[in-house]
Amino acid sequence: MSTATQITATDTALSGEFVRVRHATEQLARPLNAEDMMLQSMPDASPAKWHLAHTTWFFETFILRQHLRGYRVFNDDFLRVFNSYYKQVGDHPNRAMRGLFSRPTLDEVVAYRQHVERGMAQLLQGEASAAAESLLTLGMNHEQQHQELMVTDIKHAFWSQPLQPAYHHQPRSRNKEQAIAASPGDCKWIPFRGGIHGIGFSGDGFCFDNETPQHQTLLRPFRLASRLVTNAEYLEFIRSGAYSEPSLWLSEGWDTIVREQWHAPLYWERDQADGWRVFTLHGWQPLDLAAPTCHISYFEADAFARWSGARLPLESEWEIAARERAVPIAGNFSESGLLHPRASGQGGALQQMYGDVWEWTASPYTAYPGFVQAAGAIGEYNGKFMCNQYVLRGGSCATPQSHIRASYRNFFPAHARWQFSGIRLASDGDTVRRNNDDER
Amino acid sequence: MSTATQITATDTALSGEFVRVRHATEQLARPLNAEDMMLQSMPDASPAKWHLAHTTWFFETFILRQHLRGYRVFNDDFLRVFNSYYKQVGDHPNRAMRGLFSRPTLDEVVAYRQHVERGMAQLLQGEASAAAESLLTLGMNHEQQHQELMVTDIKHAFWSQPLQPAYHHQPRSRNKEQAIAASPGDCKWIPFRGGIHGIGFSGDGFCFDNETPQHQTLLRPFRLASRLVTNAEYLEFIRSGAYSEPSLWLSEGWDTIVREQWHAPLYWERDQADGWRVFTLHGWQPLDLAAPTCHISYFEADAFARWSGARLPLESEWEIAARERAVPIAGNFSESGLLHPRASGQGGALQQMYGDVWEWTASPYTAYPGFVQAAGAIGEYNGKFMCNQYVLRGGSCATPQSHIRASYRNFFPAHARWQFSGIRLASDGDTVRRNNDDER
Amino acid sequence: MSTATQITATDTALSGEFVRVRHATEQLARPLNAEDMMLQSMPDASPAKWHLAHTTWFFETFILRQHLRGYRVFNDDFLRVFNSYYKQVGDHPNRAMRGLFSRPTLDEVVAYRQHVERGMAQLLQGEASAAAESLLTLGMNHEQQHQELMVTDIKHAFWSQPLQPAYHHQPRSRNKEQAIAASPGDCKWIPFRGGIHGIGFSGDGFCFDNETPQHQTLLRPFRLASRLVTNAEYLEFIRSGAYSEPSLWLSEGWDTIVREQWHAPLYWERDQADGWRVFTLHGWQPLDLAAPTCHISYFEADAFARWSGARLPLESEWEIAARERAVPIAGNFSESGLLHPRASGQGGALQQMYGDVWEWTASPYTAYPGFVQAAGAIGEYNGKFMCNQYVLRGGSCATPQSHIRASYRNFFPAHARWQFSGIRLASDGDTVRRNNDDER
Amino acid sequence: MSTATQITATDTALSGEFVRVRHATEQLARPLNAEDMMLQSMPDASPAKWHLAHTTWFFETFILRQHLRGYRVFNDDFLRVFNSYYKQVGDHPNRAMRGLFSRPTLDEVVAYRQHVERGMAQLLQGEASAAAESLLTLGMNHEQQHQELMVTDIKHAFWSQPLQPAYHHQPRSRNKEQAIAASPGDCKWIPFRGGIHGIGFSGDGFCFDNETPQHQTLLRPFRLASRLVTNAEYLEFIRSGAYSEPSLWLSEGWDTIVREQWHAPLYWERDQADGWRVFTLHGWQPLDLAAPTCHISYFEADAFARWSGARLPLESEWEIAARERAVPIAGNFSESGLLHPRASGQGGALQQMYGDVWEWTASPYTAYPGFVQAAGAIGEYNGKFMCNQYVLRGGSCATPQSHIRASYRNFFPAHARWQFSGIRLASDGDTVRRNNDDER
Repeated sequence: MSTATQITATDTALSGEFVRVRHATEQLARPLNAEDMMLQSMPDASPAKWHLAHTTWFFETFILRQHLRGYRVFNDDFLRVFNSYYKQVGDHPNRAMRGLFSRPTLDEVVAYRQHVERGMAQLLQGEASAAAESLLTLGMNHEQQHQELMVTDIKHAFWSQPLQPAYHHQPRSRNKEQAIAASPGDCKWIPFRGGIHGIGFSGDGFCFDNETPQHQTLLRPFRLASRLVTNAEYLEFIRSGAYSEPSLWLSEGWDTIVREQWHAPLYWERDQADGWRVFTLHGWQPLDLAAPTCHISYFEADAFARWSGARLPLESEWEIAARERAVPIAGNFSESGLLHPRASGQGGALQQMYGDVWEWTASPYTAYPGFVQAAGAIGEYNGKFMCNQYVLRGGSCATPQSHIRASYRNFFPAHARWQFSGIRLASDGDTVRRNNDDER
Repeated sequence: MSTATQITATDTALSGEFVRVRHATEQLARPLNAEDMMLQSMPDASPAKWHLAHTTWFFETFILRQHLRGYRVFNDDFLRVFNSYYKQVGDHPNRAMRGLFSRPTLDEVVAYRQHVERGMAQLLQGEASAAAESLLTLGMNHEQQHQELMVTDIKHAFWSQPLQPAYHHQPRSRNKEQAIAASPGDCKWIPFRGGIHGIGFSGDGFCFDNETPQHQTLLRPFRLASRLVTNAEYLEFIRSGAYSEPSLWLSEGWDTIVREQWHAPLYWERDQADGWRVFTLHGWQPLDLAAPTCHISYFEADAFARWSGARLPLESEWEIAARERAVPIAGNFSESGLLHPRASGQGGALQQMYGDVWEWTASPYTAYPGFVQAAGAIGEYNGKFMCNQYVLRGGSCATPQSHIRASYRNFFPAHARWQFSGIRLASDGDTVRRNNDDER
Repeated sequence: MSTATQITATDTALSGEFVRVRHATEQLARPLNAEDMMLQSMPDASPAKWHLAHTTWFFETFILRQHLRGYRVFNDDFLRVFNSYYKQVGDHPNRAMRGLFSRPTLDEVVAYRQHVERGMAQLLQGEASAAAESLLTLGMNHEQQHQELMVTDIKHAFWSQPLQPAYHHQPRSRNKEQAIAASPGDCKWIPFRGGIHGIGFSGDGFCFDNETPQHQTLLRPFRLASRLVTNAEYLEFIRSGAYSEPSLWLSEGWDTIVREQWHAPLYWERDQADGWRVFTLHGWQPLDLAAPTCHISYFEADAFARWSGARLPLESEWEIAARERAVPIAGNFSESGLLHPRASGQGGALQQMYGDVWEWTASPYTAYPGFVQAAGAIGEYNGKFMCNQYVLRGGSCATPQSHIRASYRNFFPAHARWQFSGIRLASDGDTVRRNNDDER
Repeated sequence: MSTATQITATDTALSGEFVRVRHATEQLARPLNAEDMMLQSMPDASPAKWHLAHTTWFFETFILRQHLRGYRVFNDDFLRVFNSYYKQVGDHPNRAMRGLFSRPTLDEVVAYRQHVERGMAQLLQGEASAAAESLLTLGMNHEQQHQELMVTDIKHAFWSQPLQPAYHHQPRSRNKEQAIAASPGDCKWIPFRGGIHGIGFSGDGFCFDNETPQHQTLLRPFRLASRLVTNAEYLEFIRSGAYSEPSLWLSEGWDTIVREQWHAPLYWERDQADGWRVFTLHGWQPLDLAAPTCHISYFEADAFARWSGARLPLESEWEIAARERAVPIAGNFSESGLLHPRASGQGGALQQMYGDVWEWTASPYTAYPGFVQAAGAIGEYNGKFMCNQYVLRGGSCATPQSHIRASYRNFFPAHARWQFSGIRLASDGDTVRRNNDDER
């Protein structure tokens, strides 16, 4: 699946970036065979082959068909088959049926990728319009989002089948991680002032429409935990009987854990000795107590915070904290190949803000004041999902490092657990009620 | 069903208010027979008999059992049977099964009401503690909420059965209403300044916990429509093909209208001459074009606003507007007996803010900054529902007038339509995009 | 609810019988109030009020409207509202919604019954045609079927609600029953010869179309158990672990017990001392070990038979046995008022063939060879249900004695448990495999 | 996927037959790639890869593990993974999840097949016990059943995906078929005498347990249609409005066609010119009016028969007719590679009894009198499915010719349509009611 050599003549930064993004997708697909790439283990997830094709469809539909004179569509049927949800582009298959696309074959999808990449190379060799360049940047960010989904979807699919195979057999430098993992730093409360702050994207680079417009928000003094909640802490929550204590839960959360019979995060399983093991992309592993908890729903994040005498941060608090402390965008991202969160190191006041796990916030996903949806099908990208979802911040171990930023808003429904989603606690600036230790 | 005479000796304001609230409930039940009071036409709704009993259970459980020395529980089984959702009080029946309570009979429920009212009279004749008085006020407000639900639930139940009976046969002063209805005032945009404003309850009277704490919020300049959206306007939206145009809808909204085959508000039906008739508590009536639209979901309110080139107000905008203009709490409430929204009159800049229909806001229902949930079962009243719901403001034609205030926050899921819920448009202060006339 | 006096002038047998049947229905409804008569605890069941009205609808629709000159329909709406499933008569409400008919009220339904009874009296005073008389007989038998359903439906409804009231508080002559119950006779195998036998209805009286035509069938020698399976025997089956042993079950049966979490017959519940109690129309009672097992599905009857090393009888075997031994139609029927099966007495070779519980047979419900469905809506009575149901024979404690006969074919789906349905074992004539005692 | 060469040394008939059966399976899989073999388009269907593995599992589990000394299991996990439903063998995956088995890969499944074939060759080179030989014959017949399912499952899966690929691109000798198809013979009634007849398997070869014991049955005189119902005739049924006329349908059938919105057989679709096209394993084809109707449910077969004034045959009638006329087992079977039914030729009184389409009978699938289920897991093969299914007779165009016989009983639930299932009419011997032409 190496298609990365088509674009060579042009030395623009954009075309180089395009090649890199496409290559990264293919790297992630490399451990998978054609059969693995068929898997759709739940309607929310999609097969890897579909991700490969749909990201290509995006470039063909929104850029090549509009902006490359003489472009010939690879296959007319694909215009419909690989549309995800853009109603203004036309009909699309039922999302739950994506696991039934044995055709086109993987080989044909690879050929589709190459065809579109040749078209893009041709476009970029000439003078691409500003509109095309803007869509190209959007398309690359779109593909990076699907890289992350490809990882989380395959994890769910591998876990769902009886042989539960590993995606990678050797976590990179695992011994080293473990050493670090043995002692995450103590958790401290980092205080922030209240007042009027600007949030939302500003600057020159790319952002999604949902990060705009940059605007002012009024906050009260608050405090953020210096690091993510660990598995050791979450285990304490479980052992306290939290999953059978309704007073800790949102009403819909309680109904969900009862109906779904949740007793622990997704991918946790008791092992023989009454300990826990977790399913990872490297197969089953013993639970690393120092690593941040992940694969939990908003309901569980919220209940954990309540049990802790704290709360989840607002998305504005998170963003302002990251800005004020000038937290560098560094950490455990998809490029490391680890694809699993690891324990925090010792340095830095505000650790693990980026990478490792997406951090659930208390903020429902809504339009920023003055938000204007783009015209046409591209306007369907974000706006129409602003309902019954919660914002997550900071990226995860499956997010490409170049994809994340302080103003980035991810969003999932409150019950979603198959993303690498975890918890950072917050509290009001003045007082913190608690039922645990002093230094959480 | 007259039980209002037990409390006589005491002339405290509270006990008078208690008698009035209880009496109002019974007045609403008066047109119903024992069979009508059994009806539960969907899991979200409850039988009228259940409402009669559950509101009584509230006083027994939270006040009499705690605060009246020597109180004897009416029937031990009722403590469980009429618990709605208070997990900390104990077990409760599955909500969807409330229509199966043929026992206790209505007569027994009436006796239960009288028993509890006697207990309350006894409590109020003595010196009730501040805690008891506070719970009494809460209990009366709780009962008022159930008065409204009793009305909307019975409307749904009467519509759901084949004979579709009327609750009232003669709308009061209907001719007069119609005359007014013929010409609602033009809709104007009322401008409001941005800046920091206080919202949330302040003052001496009662409020629910979700209205607190009073706090500051930062708004941009905005404008509110001077009146509610009318049926004539909504009909224009329908006729434009809105229900088959996905670009107008939130994604979840579109899925909902397709799955549920919604083509108009709840209770609308085409009549023979291709006009529309609507089911009301007075039976089927021709659609009153001048009356405010009601029985729509958040999805429909949101789509209508998008179609109009406007948006829904934030709950903070609504509250600040009501405060700034000192809008009096007057209008079409349950006391009128009309139980249907009516067209606005000519006077006043900001009309129909209170009564007629609950106004969907763009604000997800969340905790105010610093919100603290009460300890114990009473803490379950509001906080645990702060997820996947939207705030509505202003009360409706089924709300008791004494129940509503500027800071009042009602909430329902985005798909709910059986409440009297409608639309007031908002827009940003500076510019309004639109695709229609100038003077909406 | 006494309407039995209208018909007096005529002394024909038919009109007397009509009065008696109608009166029996009203007697069964007597312990119920208007609220009880609203209950529909599952889609398969119907409210008692609906039964009262639908049986009346049958006479109005098929007899009075066709055969009584000048008859005025009581209420045009009822023609649709109380149609059960006769597509050729017209539209009918969704069966699962019958619990929502608060209107017409019980009083109106009683008036409807009286109106139709007056019409029938008028018809019968004159010279009713043979067609009308035939339909009258069908209508009375139809009403008797609904008498039984009224009993089983109300039992399910009373059990489904939190207070689980009793229908009758005093079982009649319970002590006497108990005495008998203490020692049911041993179960013996009664042998029957094979060969060609006639089955199906023959003679002068009434039968349903599904009992015709009388025809010949070829049987092998077989043996029938002399009495019904008792609770003591069924308890042994439970205690052997049968509900967790898949090899005993039909595949669909196993899926059903796993999905529904069945561990015992319907209405059984463990009491404190690890014994069992059962819900009856007299409320909860200790399990009577000597009484016949009832409220089991075909799946359970079949699994019990397999576990016993026996099998269920064919319907033809049952009918031929009843005929050959000239078993009298006597026993525990609805007229006794007991409404619960009781232990067999000592006399007679083939006990409990009639009454007590319907006996599941191994015979799918199919058309007899040469079966001809009646023309028109009446043809919908039986034929269209000949699919995925099993035949039961012999009547139950909720069946009127005058309603049953040797050729009578009742039928329910394999999972149905809310009827009084039990087990009589059969085996091949020559050999019986068994894993238990010698004298089963 | 050629694994057919391992078994060479032995020239026993059995080993040759084993090689042929295995080879036939692989031939059917040849047009499929690894991705196609992943498809499970509904819970009733299974992926081709699963069929390849499960048939192999059968030989390993029931023969090699029991009867080949020193046999080493290929992979312990497969014992569970490829168990279909044999509870006595142990746990098995949920049937609806078979589409999630990306592992083992197709290559591993092929290696599994080869491993087991080597084991079988070894066993057959020695002296296999009678028990082993008997199980081998069962295993081959089991594999032939899965060959047919593989064909029907892949047809459904190909139709379910957006590109709807063809399995074969060139039907063999299609022109020749078409010529024949142009004029199917007139349909005639072939009369048969009533009386006692023997049915069930007798003789030396293999049969399934459900065909035993051979026994006598009593029939009335009957007539069978000389050929299958054609698409032309079924189209007449559709055009008469049958799909909107409830009186033609079983009650459960009517509910099914309304709920599923069936208006024609599965795989039929209106083309532009208001004609019909059908999806076949060769892709979409114009409807061949002369070919037999297939892909219909029992409900549709039954309704068509009722509409025709005829009925479906009993399974005993079908078998006796095939025996009496000594109908040769010849016709359109899977070996032809056509994999689609074709019009009947001119010769022979009783045409198309074998091959083309399975013929729905009016007989529920029950145990023959005296049927004894085999001990152990093999006993689960047939007996536990004897509930809520109907018998089909005669084999189809997807059945191997060597697999079918007069006593063969296939069975499916009444709603199943994805098999090649069609209609042969029957009627009582004396009279035929009809509403159409004289010569049906």
